[in-house]
Amino acid sequence: MWAASPAFRRRLFLLRSLSPSPCAALPGNAACSSSPSPSTSIRVNAMSASGPVYEADAEAVVRRITPPLDRARHKGQAGKIAVIGGCREYTGAPYFAAISALKVGADLSHVFCTRDAATVIKSYSPELIVHPILEESYSVSDGEREYVSSRILTEVAKWMERFDCIVVGPGLGRDSFLLDCVSNIMRHARQANIPTVVDGDGLFLITNNLSLVEGNLLAILTPNVYEYKRLVQKVLNCEVNEENASEQLTALCQKIGGITIMRKGKADIISDGKTVTQVSTFGSPRRCGGQGDILSGSVAVFASWARHFLLTNEYPTEKSVNPMMLGCIAGSLLLRKAASHAFEKNKRSTVTTDIIEFLGKSLEDICPAGH
Amino acid sequence: MWAASPAFRRRLFLLRSLSPSPCAALPGNAACSSSPSPSTSIRVNAMSASGPVYEADAEAVVRRITPPLDRARHKGQAGKIAVIGGCREYTGAPYFAAISALKVGADLSHVFCTRDAATVIKSYSPELIVHPILEESYSVSDGEREYVSSRILTEVAKWMERFDCIVVGPGLGRDSFLLDCVSNIMRHARQANIPTVVDGDGLFLITNNLSLVEGNLLAILTPNVYEYKRLVQKVLNCEVNEENASEQLTALCQKIGGITIMRKGKADIISDGKTVTQVSTFGSPRRCGGQGDILSGSVAVFASWARHFLLTNEYPTEKSVNPMMLGCIAGSLLLRKAASHAFEKNKRSTVTTDIIEFLGKSLEDICPAGH
Repeated sequence: MWAASPAFRRRLFLLRSLSPSPCAALPGNAACSSSPSPSTSIRVNAMSASGPVYEADAEAVVRRITPPLDRARHKGQAGKIAVIGGCREYTGAPYFAAISALKVGADLSHVFCTRDAATVIKSYSPELIVHPILEESYSVSDGEREYVSSRILTEVAKWMERFDCIVVGPGLGRDSFLLDCVSNIMRHARQANIPTVVDGDGLFLITNNLSLVEGNLLAILTPNVYEYKRLVQKVLNCEVNEENASEQLTALCQKIGGITIMRKGKADIISDGKTVTQVSTFGSPRRCGGQGDILSGSVAVFASWARHFLLTNEYPTEKSVNPMMLGCIAGSLLLRKAASHAFEKNKRSTVTTDIIEFLGKSLEDICPAGH
Repeated sequence: MWAASPAFRRRLFLLRSLSPSPCAALPGNAACSSSPSPSTSIRVNAMSASGPVYEADAEAVVRRITPPLDRARHKGQAGKIAVIGGCREYTGAPYFAAISALKVGADLSHVFCTRDAATVIKSYSPELIVHPILEESYSVSDGEREYVSSRILTEVAKWMERFDCIVVGPGLGRDSFLLDCVSNIMRHARQANIPTVVDGDGLFLITNNLSLVEGNLLAILTPNVYEYKRLVQKVLNCEVNEENASEQLTALCQKIGGITIMRKGKADIISDGKTVTQVSTFGSPRRCGGQGDILSGSVAVFASWARHFLLTNEYPTEKSVNPMMLGCIAGSLLLRKAASHAFEKNKRSTVTTDIIEFLGKSLEDICPAGH
């Protein structure tokens, strides 16, 4: 009887797609066959000897959190994202993150970068709003530093409250003065309750200064294999343990005060210190640089959508779900689907731009805009 | 019996595709018809009156050295390439070389160029990582030279060990200060055992300073007809002799201490001073500038793949094969195939970008990524 109630199904769905239930842990258990619908069932993947990591029902998550396209909406209501990154050396990474946010469905996408990078990033696309305000050490004398640092924060701060999520790190580089300024921006975003995705050189920054994210429930880290290793060494003071991958990830999240971490790899494992889940849909065997930037931009959009969805939805049971987890699940799936399409078309010559081209189709396949 | 053994065939294949065997030298010889398989047979082309140059079984080489696309791999494991080139005057050439490396299948492609060139090269594509660190004489005072030169080397050196191969020369120009700095970079790459492809203005540099490549078994030169002429005049102190083309090329390689040279032309003739082979698959009658840059970028990727393949493979017999030769053979074939497709589509209006567009399909035709 209850299995036929759509309201009940919706209420349970998000919790079910994140939290393991006893029946789901036992494939073939008769109780599982009476789960509300196939689309909300929890698939099990034996990840390690120590216990299974539950595969998120990522398609259902995408469908649930993606906002309907309502004709009455105004510009900006589908999301305003900012990428903090782009320096003399790197311009591709912030572009990939920012354009991906737009291609997933955000209305506005900003980039805050150095002057050197700004001209180039602007030239990649007229779709982005690029602010040439960051500075690297070589362009600032010692005497000017305090003033310049304060001016940069003021410039970013006047925009901050408009953003639904910021991405810190793509193409940020490692210049010490620039990283100091970005630390200030992160502190400001936290005070303003703006969700913050940290990737690339942003992870280098926070690994050396954990207080920047410690206890920030709106922070998401998206480390790759090398970045994760450094994080584990620094925070847990040990090496990465593949046998207890999910336990170690959970412990890491807890130790940093309940932030969300998506450990990227063959499967993306996601935890907030309370639950752990994974997305293992196969994407592409190509490992061209830049895919992590697509992911960070996509996660930013989905996390802001999930947050808005949970803040406004009518089912109190779902309010305990962490929107940052949902953003990671959705972003992971979308990148994998897009990478798969791009590889199908371009094979070994697939580059990041080819994958971005398929973000729209991949989302449409899961969650048609007309619905 | 042995002809049916795949292991034996594999063991013999690479040597067979490079070294002339008595039977292969005699078309129609009954012994040839019992060669292991048609794909590994050695075709003969009477190149000159003095003796035949053996056509490499280039498709088989490509298939043998191209690494499988493994789902467990991480970013960078399919190759990291750097192009040293790009100055106030030239920006297209380093872009063509670097983007070709990505399109062939490398994971990361860097360019080290002057500041003037960097903005432009970055704006061609967000896929490349462009370092604006080289300087030309006009931007450096006499008093600064030593310091700037040392700073440039330090900047490049900190990246060097990450690269699987570097390409020196596309769009390098002929500024004396810049060439001095690049000489230092070449010496550093050699000490770090990084394979080095030298093309374009890099050939001008080494022709005037042979010690930069002398005896470097990881160096590849890819001269066109004019660059080859200057090299022969300088090293062998004579004119190019078409009657004894392969002997002269072999002598040239030996004289420079066993480096690999691919003499580009109607057929690309390749030697390391021990063996000589050629690739004569027809490409395109269009001779638009930039095709040499595609070649140098492609050869860099294939040479690094061949080196990795030979370092890790299980057949000791193949260890005597020179991976630099294999890289040249594979790069030559791929460019020719891609140029042929591009000409078929664009005819007289074919430009270099059109050819790059077909690198992926050409590789896929020879060596499907799904296999």
